[in-house]
Order: sequence, then C-alpha cells, then structure tokens
Amino acid sequence: MKALVLEEAHRLALRDIELPLAVGPREVKIKIHTVGVCGSDVHYYQHGRIGPFKVEEPMVLGHEASGTVVEIGNEVTHLRVGDRVCMEPGIPQFDSPATMRGLYNLDPAVRFWATPPIHGCLTPYVVHPAAFTFRLPDNVSFAEGAIVEPLSIGLQAAKKAAMKPGDVAVVIGAGTIGAMTALAALAGGASRVILADVVKEKLALFANNPAVTTVAVREQSLVDVVKQVTDGWGADVVFEASGSAKAYENLLDLVCPGGCAVLVGMPPEPVALDVVSMQAKEVRFESVFRYANIFPRALALISSGMIDVKPFISRKFSFADGIKAFEEAAAARPQDVKIQIEMEVD
Amino acid sequence: MKALVLEEAHRLALRDIELPLAVGPREVKIKIHTVGVCGSDVHYYQHGRIGPFKVEEPMVLGHEASGTVVEIGNEVTHLRVGDRVCMEPGIPQFDSPATMRGLYNLDPAVRFWATPPIHGCLTPYVVHPAAFTFRLPDNVSFAEGAIVEPLSIGLQAAKKAAMKPGDVAVVIGAGTIGAMTALAALAGGASRVILADVVKEKLALFANNPAVTTVAVREQSLVDVVKQVTDGWGADVVFEASGSAKAYENLLDLVCPGGCAVLVGMPPEPVALDVVSMQAKEVRFESVFRYANIFPRALALISSGMIDVKPFISRKFSFADGIKAFEEAAAARPQDVKIQIEMEVD
Amino acid sequence: MKALVLEEAHRLALRDIELPLAVGPREVKIKIHTVGVCGSDVHYYQHGRIGPFKVEEPMVLGHEASGTVVEIGNEVTHLRVGDRVCMEPGIPQFDSPATMRGLYNLDPAVRFWATPPIHGCLTPYVVHPAAFTFRLPDNVSFAEGAIVEPLSIGLQAAKKAAMKPGDVAVVIGAGTIGAMTALAALAGGASRVILADVVKEKLALFANNPAVTTVAVREQSLVDVVKQVTDGWGADVVFEASGSAKAYENLLDLVCPGGCAVLVGMPPEPVALDVVSMQAKEVRFESVFRYANIFPRALALISSGMIDVKPFISRKFSFADGIKAFEEAAAARPQDVKIQIEMEVD
Amino acid sequence: MKALVLEEAHRLALRDIELPLAVGPREVKIKIHTVGVCGSDVHYYQHGRIGPFKVEEPMVLGHEASGTVVEIGNEVTHLRVGDRVCMEPGIPQFDSPATMRGLYNLDPAVRFWATPPIHGCLTPYVVHPAAFTFRLPDNVSFAEGAIVEPLSIGLQAAKKAAMKPGDVAVVIGAGTIGAMTALAALAGGASRVILADVVKEKLALFANNPAVTTVAVREQSLVDVVKQVTDGWGADVVFEASGSAKAYENLLDLVCPGGCAVLVGMPPEPVALDVVSMQAKEVRFESVFRYANIFPRALALISSGMIDVKPFISRKFSFADGIKAFEEAAAARPQDVKIQIEMEVD
Repeated sequence: MKALVLEEAHRLALRDIELPLAVGPREVKIKIHTVGVCGSDVHYYQHGRIGPFKVEEPMVLGHEASGTVVEIGNEVTHLRVGDRVCMEPGIPQFDSPATMRGLYNLDPAVRFWATPPIHGCLTPYVVHPAAFTFRLPDNVSFAEGAIVEPLSIGLQAAKKAAMKPGDVAVVIGAGTIGAMTALAALAGGASRVILADVVKEKLALFANNPAVTTVAVREQSLVDVVKQVTDGWGADVVFEASGSAKAYENLLDLVCPGGCAVLVGMPPEPVALDVVSMQAKEVRFESVFRYANIFPRALALISSGMIDVKPFISRKFSFADGIKAFEEAAAARPQDVKIQIEMEVD
Repeated sequence: MKALVLEEAHRLALRDIELPLAVGPREVKIKIHTVGVCGSDVHYYQHGRIGPFKVEEPMVLGHEASGTVVEIGNEVTHLRVGDRVCMEPGIPQFDSPATMRGLYNLDPAVRFWATPPIHGCLTPYVVHPAAFTFRLPDNVSFAEGAIVEPLSIGLQAAKKAAMKPGDVAVVIGAGTIGAMTALAALAGGASRVILADVVKEKLALFANNPAVTTVAVREQSLVDVVKQVTDGWGADVVFEASGSAKAYENLLDLVCPGGCAVLVGMPPEPVALDVVSMQAKEVRFESVFRYANIFPRALALISSGMIDVKPFISRKFSFADGIKAFEEAAAARPQDVKIQIEMEVD
Repeated sequence: MKALVLEEAHRLALRDIELPLAVGPREVKIKIHTVGVCGSDVHYYQHGRIGPFKVEEPMVLGHEASGTVVEIGNEVTHLRVGDRVCMEPGIPQFDSPATMRGLYNLDPAVRFWATPPIHGCLTPYVVHPAAFTFRLPDNVSFAEGAIVEPLSIGLQAAKKAAMKPGDVAVVIGAGTIGAMTALAALAGGASRVILADVVKEKLALFANNPAVTTVAVREQSLVDVVKQVTDGWGADVVFEASGSAKAYENLLDLVCPGGCAVLVGMPPEPVALDVVSMQAKEVRFESVFRYANIFPRALALISSGMIDVKPFISRKFSFADGIKAFEEAAAARPQDVKIQIEMEVD
Repeated sequence: MKALVLEEAHRLALRDIELPLAVGPREVKIKIHTVGVCGSDVHYYQHGRIGPFKVEEPMVLGHEASGTVVEIGNEVTHLRVGDRVCMEPGIPQFDSPATMRGLYNLDPAVRFWATPPIHGCLTPYVVHPAAFTFRLPDNVSFAEGAIVEPLSIGLQAAKKAAMKPGDVAVVIGAGTIGAMTALAALAGGASRVILADVVKEKLALFANNPAVTTVAVREQSLVDVVKQVTDGWGADVVFEASGSAKAYENLLDLVCPGGCAVLVGMPPEPVALDVVSMQAKEVRFESVFRYANIFPRALALISSGMIDVKPFISRKFSFADGIKAFEEAAAARPQDVKIQIEMEVD
C-alpha cells in the first residue's frame, strides 16, 4: 500500500510499504480521508527522534486522522460500514493496571501512531480498535474530525485543571496546542482567556473573541495584564503551552492563591522551580500527557458549536503533495496553525 | 425611608419605615438602582412564610439588587464612591467555622435580605458589608447586575457538579432558576444542555441556541431524548431545577454510569429515592443552597459575553409601581422570566 | 468437577458439574483454598433471586476466594505457578467505555461470579483473568485473602467519601459490610467511627477500639451521640451500611454542613428523601456498587497491619460441610460475621 | 510582662516587655502552659530573618502553644474560663477573599505569631481570637496540645494529597515536619509509609511501626525500595519534607502514573524540574503553606489514638531555662525532634 514514509531524518518518500490489514473481531478497517500534520511528525522529519524515541526503520507518519469505516469485525456493535469517523491514535493494553484506573494514556504498553517503531496513518487504509474509533456527528467535517486529536490535548489540560465556571485562565503560547487549549479553556468554564505569545499572527486569530485578551509578550507585560484583569488576585489557571523555559520565570506570579498551573508544553531541558513561591500561594501543578476519554467530548463540543476549530485549519494539501505539506509545515510560517493532507477529495 | 413593605401575607405597602443607615468601617452605603422580584419574595407575599421562616413583623422585600456606592467605611479599599455595584444578600458571621471552611452560605448565623426577620433592599438606600459588594464591569448594566443573584444559584449548581469539558447536561425545569442553570451549565463546560419543561414559552427562549435541545415533557419522553443524544450512555450531569416530585421518578434513568445529579429545585415534600438504582450506576447527588464565592464569577461571565442574561429580563416596573410588579409576578405568566423594579431612571 | 451447586431456591448440592478449565493467554488457573459465604450467596439460596437476577439454571455459588496459581497463560508476566492469590470476581469487557473511564465495575457487560447465569468459585479449580488475580503478601493468610472481597466494598465506600484526615465518620449497620466499612473508614482517615446497630453482639467486636464509639440504637439516640461527639456540628461522613429504610429517617441530621453520606446498604424499597433538608447543608450523596481498583489496596492495608480483619472471620467449614456452612450462615446468628469454607487444609 | 525576646540575631533575652492584653468581644485570654520550639524560631535566632521576613525590632518568639483560658470576650460561646486549649497562630482578615474561599492561610493580611513584626507567645499570657482557640480533649496533654501546630502541617500535606485508602506514600525527610507528615499520611489513608533520611536516629523513632519502611539514603537507594515495595509501579504520593534540592533529582522516579508529589519542605534556592518526565506520568504537584481548618482534626486524631505524637516530644525546659532550650534546639542533635518550654508546672 502507498504511504508517506519517513525513511530517516530529512528523507520522506511517498511509496509502497507492507502494512497489516487483517480486521480482528473488535477492530474496524477505515478508508482515511484527512490527516493533520503535527509538530511531532515534523520533528521526526527534521531530527529523526524525539527524546528516547528514535526512527531506526522506515516509518509511516501521521496520527491525526479521519475517514470512513469500510469493514467491521464481528464483535463490533457501535459502528457500521459507511460511518464517518475519527480515530484515537494511542492503543493501550486494555487489561493493564493503567487502563483499568482510567489512565490508559499512561500505560507503558501504549502503541501510538507514528511514534517509533509504530507506523502512522498517512496511508489509504488502516485497521484500528473499534473502541478507539468515533463516529463524526453529521455536522462535523472530515477536516474537523482530523483536528480532534490536538484539540483533545487542550481539553485534557482543561479537564486536569478542574476548572470552575467563571475562572480566569492564562494560556502561554498560541501555537496549535496553545490555540486548542484556549478554545478548551473557554468551553471548559473560563470567563476570560488571557492568551500570550511572541508571534502576533497567532494572536490575531483570536482578535474577534470578546472573551480573549491577547498579549504580545514582547510589547506588554503578561504579569501586568493578569494583575489588571484580576484586580491583583491572579488567574485561577495558567496553561503553559509554549514549552519555553522562559515561561517558567514568572509563571507563579500569574497564579492566584490556591490556583493551578497546567504544564502542557514540553521544555527540552529542566526548568527552574521556586518551590517557596509556589508554596506561598499553595499553587497546584498538573501535567498533561496526550488525553484519555476525550475524543467524544471534543466531537460533541464541535458539533454543538461550543468550539469552532475551522479558523485554525490553515491549509490543505493532497496526498500526492504530502511531502510538500511537510516542507511547508517545517517552514513554520507565523500565519499557519494546522496543515492537513487530504487522502481523497470529497 | 420609603420601602416596599410586606405587612403580612397578601398585603404590601409602599411606605416609610425606619432602617439603620450608619456605615461601619468595613461597610458601604449604596443607592439602589434595580431590584429583581424573586419567587421567594412572591411566596412570602402570597403565603407569609417559607418553611420555618414566618413573616411576623412588617418586612421590606427584595434581595436581587444593584446600585451605586455613595459612602464607604474607613477600612474599605476595593470600592470608591460612584462605583456601580451589585450585592450578595446573605451575610454570615465571618469568623464562624462554616465561613472559614469556605462554606459561608451554610453558616447558621447567615442574615439574608428579605428572609424573616431581616429586611430586604426594596428601598432607596442600604448599608452593606464591602466584602459582599461587587463592582460592575463597565459593560454590565444595572439590570444585569440585579440578575447576578439568581444566576449565581445556577453557577453554584454547575460548580458543585464538577463538570468536565464536553459534558452532556440535562436541566429539568426552565423557570428562572432552570434557565440560569442552563446558562451556567453551558458556560461551565457542557457541550449540550437538554432542557425540559411543561411550559413551551419557557423553552422558546432557548430556541436559537444550537447547543440546547428543548424537550416539552408533555409531548416527548425526556428519557428517550437523553438516550438518543448520548447513544444510550446517559447524561453526565442532571440538574433538577423544577422542585417537582415527579422529576424524581425517572431521574436516575437520565444519568450515565458514574454521573451526577445536582438537586437545585426544592420539592415541598420528601421524594422517593430508589437507592439500588442509584448504586447500580454509582450516581452522585449534589445539593445546592444559594452560593458562595460566585458573584465575581457571574459578573466576569456576563462581561465577557460567555453568558447573556438579557433575554431573561422580561419586564421592568418603576419603584412607584412596585406593588403592581409583585402582582404581575404572582400571576406567573408563561412568557415572564425575571421581572425587575427600577428605583431610579438611568 | 465437584462444586457446591444451587439447584434452585432452598436446594443445594455438592456434586459434579462441567466447568470450562482451558487457560487463555492472559488467564491463570487457580486451585481454590478458601471461599467466604456472602449474604448474596445466602439470599440466592433462600430466595432464588436478587432483584432482576434470577437463578434459572443450577449455579455454582461463591465469589470471595483465595487459592494458589497452578497454571499461567503465555502472556502472563506478573504471576507464577505457586503464587498464593485472591481473585476479584467481576470481569468487565476490558475495552468498554466504562472500563476505559476507570469505572469497570459499572460496565453493563460485567460477568460476576455467582450472579446468574455466571458460575461462582465453590469448586476446586477456576480459570480467571490474570489482571484480576492478586498475589497475597507473605504475611496475609488464605482466610484474609478470601475476606478481601467484602473489605473492598468498605474501601470503595471510603474512597468515594473522599475523606480528609481526621474526619468523624458514622457507620450505620455493623454486619459484615458495616464492619468492613468501619475498618475502611479508620484506615482511610477517620479520627473516630461512630458505629450503630441494633445487635449488640456485632458492636461488641469493636469494644476495644478506642477510636470507635458504638451505639446500640435501641438504647441510645444516634443523633444525640453524633451531636455530642462533634459539638453539634455533625459528622463529616455517614456510611449507610444497613440497607434499612429506617436509617434514612434521620440520616441528614447526622451530617455536617458540606458533608457527605455514602449509600452502601441496599434497601429493598425506595426510601423517602427530604431534599430541602439535604440542601440546607449542601449534603453530597455518594453510592457504591462493588469496587474498582481496590483489591491491591485492601491487601496492602492488611499486610501492613493498618486493617485487622481476623476478628471478623467467625467460623470455618470444610468443603465437605459446605451445605452446613450455608445453613449456619442462613441462621444469621448475632455473633457470626464472616463464615468461610476451606477447600483444602493448610 | 516577662517574655522570651529575640533582640536581634544571636541575642535572646528573658525580660519584661509591653504586650496588649485587652480582650475583645470575640477573643479570649489564655495563660500559656507549653510552647514548642520550632525550626523557624531557631532560624530567626540564628539568622535574624527568613526570606523577606526580617527581625528589625525586638520580637517575642514562639508559636506552638497550649494553655488555659482565663478570660473570655462577651460574644464567645464555645469556650469557658478554665478550658485547656491550644491556639492556631496565624490570624487572617476574616472577611477577606481568601478567608471566604476557605484559604485563610493564604490571606496576605495574616498576622502570624513570631513572624516579624508580630510578637509570639513565649510569655505568660496572650489574647487570641476565640475562633482560633481549640479546647483540648480530656485525654490530650498540654505537651500534645503544643505539638498540634507542626502536626497540622503534616495533616495539611496529607489533605492536599487527596489520599485514597491504601495509598503507598513516600516521605522524604524525617525531621519534625517529616515525622509529623509520616504520622499524618498513615492516619490519612496510607497502607505504608516509606520514610527516608540521612540521619538514622530520626528513622529509629519509627522502627517499631510495621507500616513504616525506613530508608537510610546514604546506604540504600530510595528509588529501589519504592520499586520493590510497589512492584515497579511507584508510590501514590511522595511528600517532600526535607527542603533539600537533592531530593528533587529523582523525585519523579518515585511517583506512580497519575500520582502526586506534595511539596512541604522549603528549598532555599529554586530546584530543577524535568517537566517532560513529570508529564510522562501526568504527575500532580501540590504545595503546602501552613494549614487551614486542621487544628480540630489534629486534636481528634491524637485523642482517639490514631496518631501518637508522644515519642516525638524529646525534651522539656522550664521558662526560666528558655534560652537554654533555644541553644539546645540550635545544636540540632540527631536524637532530638521536638523541644518544648513549659511556662508553668502541672
């Protein structure tokens, strides 16, 4: 089968590769329609590794996908052939201690699309557990279905925050994950999101939202804005979605007494934590690793209009132009948020 | 001072009455602008009592109020003369065990406006603790400020539910409290509210909200709608805001495994609870008594546009027509949600 | 294979019956050592049904079991032949929505030992999922291993209560489940358990525990004792473990403002709930259905000495005397808590 | 009145000093019996400051106190003259936003005994808010009453952890706060505490507790012990009570997936935090600043025997020998945990 294969760092190929396509009793086969290009895909393309995960064999990329069910296993009851669906890309051992505790994303046995040595989904057909395949509501497009994966990270972050209605939230970083987190925070209870980034083009996408205050951090002090908005009390929740060590320098100044910071971004090196300042306000830190039990929630929020992801889908490429899509994504233009690849035309 | 006084059941007077107006060091004096008429005010008017609370002396009515600060005590720092404000009407003992636990609404010592024998605020001036007086954001009107009180009950309910982003919520009852709870649930994380009532005029106010499914319960089975919307799983949260014993008959059929019901409405008699059915899904019940630490959250949600209360303010009367306002409220017309009395003209 | 079979209501037989013994790749085969007799086993024996669950075919009884691993499937890594173990008796569908949310006990697909039509474990050998088979620490006996099942219900109740260190807890009912709940509450954070029952022999088992106040409810008012112990504030948590409708009459008088009641006992009929009294203190109700992710915790608490279950194992019978064990259990003598059947002699 | 006064760093005096003794309507006057010497008292003695708090005027030391009520204000109802009591030393503004949220310990306006410029309680009589004065149960001694303050820090930590019954807990550091945290963790739900320190004499105090595993970290790897005790899964909760930057080096290796670390110790400098390792297990961090609403819980746990603090009261000195007590405390002998000063003889 044809697939977009990362042969090794810097070298992509659109070529045939052998992939298993037998459908087990609790699995379905899906014709892929749309696949988003994720920062991690691009990172493997550019560096051949992320932390301990190293590309040592050719690997199919892609893990943000939607498509149509074309075959179902004989124990599958909640899906039918022809269903439009999106797929959760990380499959745990279902009877593991982590899964049974509701923490399947933390199961050491998880097999995650396009995380070496597991192949991804940039290929016309995949076989997937029915339990991790979710029907798209009629008013949700394939493009929206394929952005559910990064949106789910934002929603996992909002869930971890245990937000209360009316919370003031700060989101540091307005890239894809930051943008999705801002949407999730608003849908999850925030009365206001104070969104900070160095890149003004990212912030511009939120310009018309009266519940979002954007802060171009090279021109304005985020701490000052937070103090002004909250009468000096601080934000109930701060989502760190930039992965920048610099964001940690005044993170604790942003949080209110008894408040929370959710660590979503992944700083490449350890950061400095002033424990005594954290204690003075009894700040809680939560951390996020992907998501668990979030996909159906993301779909429901898109379908009801509570979250509108469409402005964040910047450009689409055909499968034939898949390598170009990666090159564009690697160029990291300020105005681009999500780039997607369409395997077929609607 | 002139006030709208309940002399005894069925008898209102707009007359002079002596009220204390000395301003303590941590208090402010407020010129009242708008006062909402609450179901409890009307109930005292019609019945002279609510449960153990009996009107035995003439009592000023009204507890949903906004106005302007005209004098401040010498220890007050967060308010100034001229500030537009709304007031939280139940004052606890501040050093009580309940208050120190963050549960000041449950303090047995609470003195609550227009709950016998405490006078309410349907009078031109009141003195109030600064700690329970909240500045209105510039884009929040006095009318909106005066509806913060019932909205806060809805937000307390949403807070108690500990909602997660994307929850499906049912709200039973679309009166003032049900409507405010529906708004609160959407602002608090719901992807969808399924709102049920017998009165179609109440439901009509939500007709244009794509995230609300209305159910006229004399024509449609609420259980069926919930099953259809949730693929048979059930709603994450059910808010009981009707106070009807009938609502409890199939309440547990509406809730998903591990889900929650929040009891907001106040049934006049005990209801029947099928404990075994509750256990089979490990349902949690939360209950709501007014609110605590909610007013600033309500104001923030109105100001940012996350909650729009304006459609629920049905009619306004002048202070001179205050008795008529009560008669209209007592008439309980289907199309009326909140009736307000304006003490002065903007 | 020989088994203790409930042929129909009132009729037990110790006889051969065909049971599947093939060991799947993620399963183990266990030689049963000890099986506790549960109230539900006795109820099936006496009535042939519990609610919707009806004995329509002969069924092996027993679901509280310990034993020794004699064979392991080829994917099993955490157990070895010869391991002493106890088993969790309710097997869910592992990739179901409930299981993935950490609520596998609420999965509608659960197959639970000795709940019709599923056979129980009063037979020399069983095959069981390795994921639900837990190694006994060296200092935990087979008898203790076999009482982990009812203890887990108590621990699930304590977990649901979200107890804080130093909580005052009330436990209503001192039968097996009440006793296990009292032990769980003490291990789970209670500074004191106020334990109430009509049967003084049950209470006597706690006579020497300085942290337990026993209340013989025919002689003393439970409400009065709770008020006296808590200076009128009320208990932080009330565990209802009697299943008696009478317990609900003053349940809310026992709970403190902002407190919690955990419903463990199963009243045969709906009970009356005074919603307004519940709201006046914003009481939370939690309900319990078996347990999830509790067995390893129970074993750890027994092994470290934080919980001592030995006084509650009243009598043991041999497998040959299994029917007599049931007759004795059915006699419900006041001094009996747990009766166990030993399949083999140590 | 005579008092133990810190004149400046290194210079103590037992001398007369003027202190206010008027009793307000909601206050009580207490004859002090026992005062514990805290590490912070010793730190002010040795260094004249702690972080931003600098001793610029002579200051009475001491904040861990018990005594007897000798006078009550006219609004005080829950205390009587002659009551034996202990006192919570940090007084907030009672109508502040923090207090009303149940976070009075985080109120910026807190006035805390022996934190400059507020005088402490090493003096024969103090006046204190009745709301922060707690009656000792009959079986709780003055010495135990005076150790409630540091025990409350441990209990605050256990409360913040939101422990579940049967949790495995690690406590790093076995000084006074570590020891109190270990007791709190066991009372709060732990099945086992793994207690680590470099000083073997500190660990020896727990030698006879079957639920405590002690680890002398210069001889044994704490990570190895935790892995062995938890079958490689990790501890549910890790309490960092050493304040040592070194403890943070492998802190995350100790925590289980979805687990929690509670930061109690106060490292003098920022520590390095590996965010990505924290995220890989979605670890939560909680932090602790003193305590709120804990004193009555501490007293209840001591009174019922669930916590035994007596082994941790190492030595007592008379008030006349108060300066010697400080010198001994400053010597920090390995076998000393808590040193107390008795103002009067029983």
